[in-house]
Amino acid sequence: MNADALIERAIERAVAASEGPDAPPQLGAAIRHAVFPGGARVRPQLCLAVAHACNAGDDLTFAAGAGAAIELLHCASLVHDDLPCFDAASIRRGKASVHVAHGEPLAVLAGDALIVMAFETLIREYAVCPRKMRDVAKIVARAVGARDGIVAGQAWESEPHINLSAYHRAKTGALFVAAATAGAASVDADGTPWRALGERLGEAYQIADDIRDFTMDENTLGKPILQDITNERPNAVDSLGLQGAVEQLNALVRDAADAIPDCAGATALRALVYAQARRLTPKNIANAAA
Amino acid sequence: MNADALIERAIERAVAASEGPDAPPQLGAAIRHAVFPGGARVRPQLCLAVAHACNAGDDLTFAAGAGAAIELLHCASLVHDDLPCFDAASIRRGKASVHVAHGEPLAVLAGDALIVMAFETLIREYAVCPRKMRDVAKIVARAVGARDGIVAGQAWESEPHINLSAYHRAKTGALFVAAATAGAASVDADGTPWRALGERLGEAYQIADDIRDFTMDENTLGKPILQDITNERPNAVDSLGLQGAVEQLNALVRDAADAIPDCAGATALRALVYAQARRLTPKNIANAAA
Repeated sequence: MNADALIERAIERAVAASEGPDAPPQLGAAIRHAVFPGGARVRPQLCLAVAHACNAGDDLTFAAGAGAAIELLHCASLVHDDLPCFDAASIRRGKASVHVAHGEPLAVLAGDALIVMAFETLIREYAVCPRKMRDVAKIVARAVGARDGIVAGQAWESEPHINLSAYHRAKTGALFVAAATAGAASVDADGTPWRALGERLGEAYQIADDIRDFTMDENTLGKPILQDITNERPNAVDSLGLQGAVEQLNALVRDAADAIPDCAGATALRALVYAQARRLTPKNIANAAA
Repeated sequence: MNADALIERAIERAVAASEGPDAPPQLGAAIRHAVFPGGARVRPQLCLAVAHACNAGDDLTFAAGAGAAIELLHCASLVHDDLPCFDAASIRRGKASVHVAHGEPLAVLAGDALIVMAFETLIREYAVCPRKMRDVAKIVARAVGARDGIVAGQAWESEPHINLSAYHRAKTGALFVAAATAGAASVDADGTPWRALGERLGEAYQIADDIRDFTMDENTLGKPILQDITNERPNAVDSLGLQGAVEQLNALVRDAADAIPDCAGATALRALVYAQARRLTPKNIANAAA
């Protein structure tokens, strides 16, 4: 089975496990709205790619479980970030955001449910190997927590004094670091050498997002544009100019590829990083900066 | 060490682990506001009492870890339930609710952080015994999930057609069931026979809360009164009358005591259930109905 199918099946199992005849149906609908159809699932893709690079012979079911948990947490953060008290974004992935489609109460609860679901996913998918579950769950929990995970990242936007490097590491970097290190841990490899790859990809993804926020229209992007300006958030295009931001993106992608540790699948993974990076940059910008 | 101290220390360890020099300080303050000073910590108390009743010789550190995780989830639910899009409650435990004191964005994030923190607590407190962690985490996750946990319970209030029995089981019962069964699981006892105790106590607690919502003033209660009428929620006093509600409370407490399975500490636990129940009913009501 290919990576896409493994990831989608693990996510579908997770969502289905939260449904039942006595479950509140509108909440179920809001959760499905938040999760399907997904975006590029870049974090779970990274998780599986690292697991495969570490140990191509290993079953990737554990990696898909970790990837699904991370994707559910990413979806939870999008639902809550779109709420009126944060970005007040009315569209996401080209359709109404969850609070617009299902109301604010169910959007808050769908986000809460997705956080719980992420941990239930790890508990279920790693049931036969509790030691590995503990190690992967520890990585995943830290990546979303209040100290330096995505909750911390979002909270920095409400602080009177922002710690910019902590903000970026937490807001975008943390889940990429978790995806890379959990991918390694899911096949019993040491996650530590994989942190740098996750950090660089997280930074690259953030800059690519900043560039798209400035250069694409709302229909193509599938969410509101100029959100950073509207919400007075730091944006790389604002600080470096468009060409400077594209150059920094390219440098970060090279750094990411160089950060891949020695392993059986290093060459193939490096090629994958470059291929994914080309997808991140809007074509007209890539050509203009080439 | 007594139960109160074990519980508070486990909760303090959990909150402290989410703090650090690079963590957003206002979020940290909002989290502390939500957790300290606590209420009666009835759910962790139940968790430790069941663990002690099952195996008085066992170290109760694992039970305190489970109890702390459950209390953090309870705190998370209070923070989110108080939000303007739900109850819009401005006081809680006798002080400003989190969104009033720290703003709505940090209240949403503090709730999210507390959910994550609950699972981190289990991962940390059960680090030396991953198998037990898996079993306890499974119990705890189900108790808060979208199928029949507290998120489902809160969501029923947003559904056009409410399933009343599913609503009560999920909204109040689920965390009591989790406290009782996780208490047993934390000392390697089978949790299943303990479900009934949790269910009865959850129902009793809900009715006691309904009675207090009708009969106490805001200062004594420490949160807004007549919330059920304001929010058009089902309330036992409304459906049974005050005396009927008090009689049902007493019957549920007897049922709860009777539901305690055979175990070394059954007699002491039964006495504790009656003692706690006396604390739940406002004194003037208990006397009037006696």
